[in-house]
Amino acid sequence: MHSMQQTEVNVDIRSYMRGLGERARAASRALAGAPAAAKNRALAAVAENIDKTRDDLAAQNRKDLERARRMDLDAASIDRLELNESRLNAIIAGLHQIADLPDPVGAITNLNYRPSGIQVGQMRVPLGVIGIIYESRPNVTADAAALGLKSGNAVILRGGSEALNSNLAITRCIARGLAAAGLPEASVQAVASVDRGAVGALLRMSEYVDVIVPRGGKGLVERVMRESSIPTIKHLDGVCHVYIDDQADIDKAVRIAVNAKTQRFGTCNTMETLLVHKKIARLALSRIAPMMRRAGVALRGCERTLALTDGVPATEQDWYEEYLAPILAVRIVDGIDQAMEHINGYGSRHTDAVVTENIGRARRFLLEVDSSSVMVNASTRFADGFEYGLGAEVGISTDKLHARGPVGLTGLTSQKFVVFGDGHIRE
Amino acid sequence: MHSMQQTEVNVDIRSYMRGLGERARAASRALAGAPAAAKNRALAAVAENIDKTRDDLAAQNRKDLERARRMDLDAASIDRLELNESRLNAIIAGLHQIADLPDPVGAITNLNYRPSGIQVGQMRVPLGVIGIIYESRPNVTADAAALGLKSGNAVILRGGSEALNSNLAITRCIARGLAAAGLPEASVQAVASVDRGAVGALLRMSEYVDVIVPRGGKGLVERVMRESSIPTIKHLDGVCHVYIDDQADIDKAVRIAVNAKTQRFGTCNTMETLLVHKKIARLALSRIAPMMRRAGVALRGCERTLALTDGVPATEQDWYEEYLAPILAVRIVDGIDQAMEHINGYGSRHTDAVVTENIGRARRFLLEVDSSSVMVNASTRFADGFEYGLGAEVGISTDKLHARGPVGLTGLTSQKFVVFGDGHIRE
Repeated sequence: MHSMQQTEVNVDIRSYMRGLGERARAASRALAGAPAAAKNRALAAVAENIDKTRDDLAAQNRKDLERARRMDLDAASIDRLELNESRLNAIIAGLHQIADLPDPVGAITNLNYRPSGIQVGQMRVPLGVIGIIYESRPNVTADAAALGLKSGNAVILRGGSEALNSNLAITRCIARGLAAAGLPEASVQAVASVDRGAVGALLRMSEYVDVIVPRGGKGLVERVMRESSIPTIKHLDGVCHVYIDDQADIDKAVRIAVNAKTQRFGTCNTMETLLVHKKIARLALSRIAPMMRRAGVALRGCERTLALTDGVPATEQDWYEEYLAPILAVRIVDGIDQAMEHINGYGSRHTDAVVTENIGRARRFLLEVDSSSVMVNASTRFADGFEYGLGAEVGISTDKLHARGPVGLTGLTSQKFVVFGDGHIRE
Repeated sequence: MHSMQQTEVNVDIRSYMRGLGERARAASRALAGAPAAAKNRALAAVAENIDKTRDDLAAQNRKDLERARRMDLDAASIDRLELNESRLNAIIAGLHQIADLPDPVGAITNLNYRPSGIQVGQMRVPLGVIGIIYESRPNVTADAAALGLKSGNAVILRGGSEALNSNLAITRCIARGLAAAGLPEASVQAVASVDRGAVGALLRMSEYVDVIVPRGGKGLVERVMRESSIPTIKHLDGVCHVYIDDQADIDKAVRIAVNAKTQRFGTCNTMETLLVHKKIARLALSRIAPMMRRAGVALRGCERTLALTDGVPATEQDWYEEYLAPILAVRIVDGIDQAMEHINGYGSRHTDAVVTENIGRARRFLLEVDSSSVMVNASTRFADGFEYGLGAEVGISTDKLHARGPVGLTGLTSQKFVVFGDGHIRE
């Protein structure tokens, strides 16, 4: 990937990036005051342009695919890269769906009179300029642009270099849609260079970029964390737990544990470690272990677990592991305190669930487990912007500041204070 | 200051700081689940301890004052350092006031049933561990500790080295108060070292510290921005504007402009640049300029301004300047567009006001001026946590993510998702 041919952009990459930043900042000013109708018109026009230019999109995508095959990219990466008819249909449907969401911008809340006589409230406003850095899927180009536009932000998109031609073709459709709606074309700009210095430059343009959203694997997110001088909204690890309490309903426990692990293996909200109360362990494992094995899941257990069922001994490292694979760590605990200590100590603060019929324990778990999603009697797989009713998902934030958990359109906005007086002064 | 005597702590500063971090993290777990009553009992007990140990506090404070005088600190710094009876009374009153505020932690909002049958809501939770770095005033020790404690966070306090003895004496009172209420003493820890490496170490302990709050001058904030690998809640510049529109009520305009500049010169929400519509400039300046001069304010004007009143020519740099002094930059503009362009271009996104009776222009100003507080017909001096009804103020954030504008207790919290099911799984 690093040795790919250079692109048409041959100017110094830092000044090229600063040019994008300057234009994005100017566009963001116009977008902040743009009515919902104009933004929605733009989204519909982008969808129309994508539909009209399927041939060009396919041709550009073929260039990326051919290069990827020449470079011996693995089959999964090549598959992610492909923009076939059904993926184009999904992009178009996604654009219409985001257009249909309510506009978060401008809502004023908590507008109250103060003793001084002024009225004070808070207005929801765009963040300004968002830098989005992502990996191979070209559909993210349309998706990220639409989320940014709908929330009133200008975006600078830096996709994977292997998808450059596809991404630029989609960006041309976006530019035409913006122009049709009378919005600045610089509202959405893609980095037209595969120069790896582009990412470094983007991460340091704090005067032009208000937030960075990395969407991709752990390597990308860690690089962004290390290098960015701009605040980020990001997702790191998903080491999710289900704790089966001794006062659990065993049928619910089995159903939830199996779903949390086996519904999909590679997602961030998949259970990686199962914790079971010692009093219910024999019963629970006698039902769960065979179902896991039938689903192809290999068990790694603590000593007490291996006394009850077959498996490989779990090492200390296993408790920290995000397998993203058909492997499950299992630990038998003495009770809810040890379960919560395990989760807060080894977990990644993503999503954790308790299965119990005991209200007091459910209440403690919700309050004391320090994770972005905490659940009672539900599968961790529900941790998702669509399941939570956010309409669209920018990603799942594992940070604590700003947005925590699934991030929707409001995660791309902030609130400013608005004050109304009638000549009021401070005494 | 840098050459001050070494303290009792002579261990390697990084491992000393990591020890504080580890204890703070453990304490934060206990605090997250602590009931409001225990936190309020602790705050009352701290107040009582400060009241009971006035003699010791005065003696420790004298040590700091004597050293400051020997080091020829300026009079203003020495004054800020002093803990006299009335300042101790203010600290005690402040602690009771924070105890009386509603506890933000645990509130669940937007708990709704989703089509899948699960209920999803959001619970307000502490951030975890807050590192607070501040300069000479020792009263910040009590204030910052109280805000952290009330919002369920553990805090690590790093005050100015010149106030070390005073800060440690106050921290001992806090520890006794925490113990009396059964809360971990490590909930509030002060760095007992003047080693300047302490700040650098604190800014890099991202595994133990969730947010850094610098409270002090621009030099401190800029250092924190440069070095911190931890998210910050911070205040940088306050280049605040009042724009007097040609449809302003002239009496309101005069009152607001004079108050915004002269009520206090050194505060971040003081007006630094006055913008006046060309059609009302002669009338407005004929009344405002003499009042400014009587208040000792020197004017720096654009060319058109200097054609109407006396003053020094303003340079390009003046439009960026946060004077914090009796100086005012004045510019005559062609209308609201040029005013907003000036504010968004030269301003610091802190607090800006428009004086106008025209609803359409007020509406545009509120939407399009990208500042943490935007005001119609009110003095910029109102931008303040107490005036806004937040009860207590951690500071005024000039950031866009997380908290924007005056930050109260909720600014030290986040929201996690809570999910309730009854054995629900994802299909």
